[in-house]
Amino acid sequence: MTHPITGVYSAAATPLNADLSPNLPAFAAHCHWLLEQGCNGIALLGTTGEANSFSVLERQHILDAALSAGIAPDQLMPGTGLPNIPETIALTRHALSQGVTRVVMLPPFYYKPVSDEGLFAAYARVIEGVADSRLNIVLYHIPQVAGLGISHDLIDRLRTAFPDTVVGIKDSAGKIENMEGMIARFPGFSVLAGADPLLLPVMQMGGAGCITATSNIVARDLAIVYAGANDPAQADAVAKAQDRINAFRNLSNSYVQIPAIKAMVGHVWDDPAWARTRPPLVAMSQAEQADLATKLAPLNTPKAKAAA
Amino acid sequence: MTHPITGVYSAAATPLNADLSPNLPAFAAHCHWLLEQGCNGIALLGTTGEANSFSVLERQHILDAALSAGIAPDQLMPGTGLPNIPETIALTRHALSQGVTRVVMLPPFYYKPVSDEGLFAAYARVIEGVADSRLNIVLYHIPQVAGLGISHDLIDRLRTAFPDTVVGIKDSAGKIENMEGMIARFPGFSVLAGADPLLLPVMQMGGAGCITATSNIVARDLAIVYAGANDPAQADAVAKAQDRINAFRNLSNSYVQIPAIKAMVGHVWDDPAWARTRPPLVAMSQAEQADLATKLAPLNTPKAKAAA
Repeated sequence: MTHPITGVYSAAATPLNADLSPNLPAFAAHCHWLLEQGCNGIALLGTTGEANSFSVLERQHILDAALSAGIAPDQLMPGTGLPNIPETIALTRHALSQGVTRVVMLPPFYYKPVSDEGLFAAYARVIEGVADSRLNIVLYHIPQVAGLGISHDLIDRLRTAFPDTVVGIKDSAGKIENMEGMIARFPGFSVLAGADPLLLPVMQMGGAGCITATSNIVARDLAIVYAGANDPAQADAVAKAQDRINAFRNLSNSYVQIPAIKAMVGHVWDDPAWARTRPPLVAMSQAEQADLATKLAPLNTPKAKAAA
Repeated sequence: MTHPITGVYSAAATPLNADLSPNLPAFAAHCHWLLEQGCNGIALLGTTGEANSFSVLERQHILDAALSAGIAPDQLMPGTGLPNIPETIALTRHALSQGVTRVVMLPPFYYKPVSDEGLFAAYARVIEGVADSRLNIVLYHIPQVAGLGISHDLIDRLRTAFPDTVVGIKDSAGKIENMEGMIARFPGFSVLAGADPLLLPVMQMGGAGCITATSNIVARDLAIVYAGANDPAQADAVAKAQDRINAFRNLSNSYVQIPAIKAMVGHVWDDPAWARTRPPLVAMSQAEQADLATKLAPLNTPKAKAAA
């Protein structure tokens, strides 16, 4: 079964200036490096990218910066889902106006609980409001953060109504059974693992790839897992890459994940300013950063400047 | 102990046109009626007001419509809290630019869990970014919807840092113990009940008032409870008003609350268009509305046109 969206997408982190505005040149450089490392694309402005901590205008500027730096529109997949429909339409239309046709779309995440009927109506109004047949939407299932999830029945209903538009899902809930169920029920629907350790099993059960946070550091290893997941001859290389991915992931998750990922990217770029976060996320303290540095030392962290 | 913000504030619902844009004249008329019914002010653009289902621009227009219709700035208390700091600052500054100095501010509600340190940093950046000594913030504690709440330690820290700015809280969690604890710990801090049945006990323990949804229908009764809560001579009138409030509230909560409140306001105005909601909220079905009408019949629903 071929998928409309395949590969390793990086849930790219967003570097900040001292005033916590997005550092656009550093972001564009990081996107280029991620692609050099083997990412098929950049899923910018997701949870790891702190999208919802930026204004609509800042989000547009961040996407524009990647495009201006020469990243191809078909390598970019921005998050555009907000709690309100008009701004979700505006962000999605802005992406399309720049030739970016694939977006990752959170459900409206303020009200809970909400019914599938309400979520269907919200997505339908966005799709009808965008009114562009080029649009490809990857739904975003991250109930532990958004406070509500995407049920299989909702996917079924959206695919039936908008078969050429609703083409995939990023599943960040971390439950392989949920991905297995979607792969079995929805042929041709791109199921993308949102957690690094699940890329391998997802690929082995017919999934489409991943959008993960640790890709900000170990995209090269994720590309190895992606390429070799179903090739017995590559089993050793895949296992070794997966071990490396897990080492970095387990380290980030031993702190608060997103600030740790950003501090780790600071080691990739030899730039401690990468550790900055926007409130409500709190940057790692100096003591935590020192602890992290000690634990990173034996892991042979990739270096962006050497790779460029 | 006197409070900076006192009284009955209506968490005003927002009527919609057929295209689901806000019906600004109908909203302004409803605000006028609520004040005539005895509300001390309008807490527009809260959860009941579907604030987070509107764009930043629409929210500004909704506030502007109330002001243009002659509602005094000091009778309006809009919600201005969003997950991102720049737009929270922009909405708050817009209110201040119109002379509206009191706002209700959700914490940034995308990420969970977040630390008090992160929430403090977010509020601090907003307050410092707004940079207007006139600003009075009512914090908004509604963990069952926002997915995170306002701890007493966070209030303490904010009051210490910004004593003239962080002046109260709307507590919509529905736990009287939490309000009791805040009233005891923070003298002069305006604790406003977010649930209609709790106005009376909150006033009796030294609270400041309420911001509630059922006020869209029974503001007159809430005003009776507010005025007489601590006057034994009014105990009978208060009990009778409270019974009436509870009857409407229990009816709304026997459906999905916000759509039911809007349909009930439709009976106040004899205008079924009031039942419309924005996705992800789903308007009551025709069958539910018929059922609601039957149950409203014996309750002697107030009529806005007659009262005007």
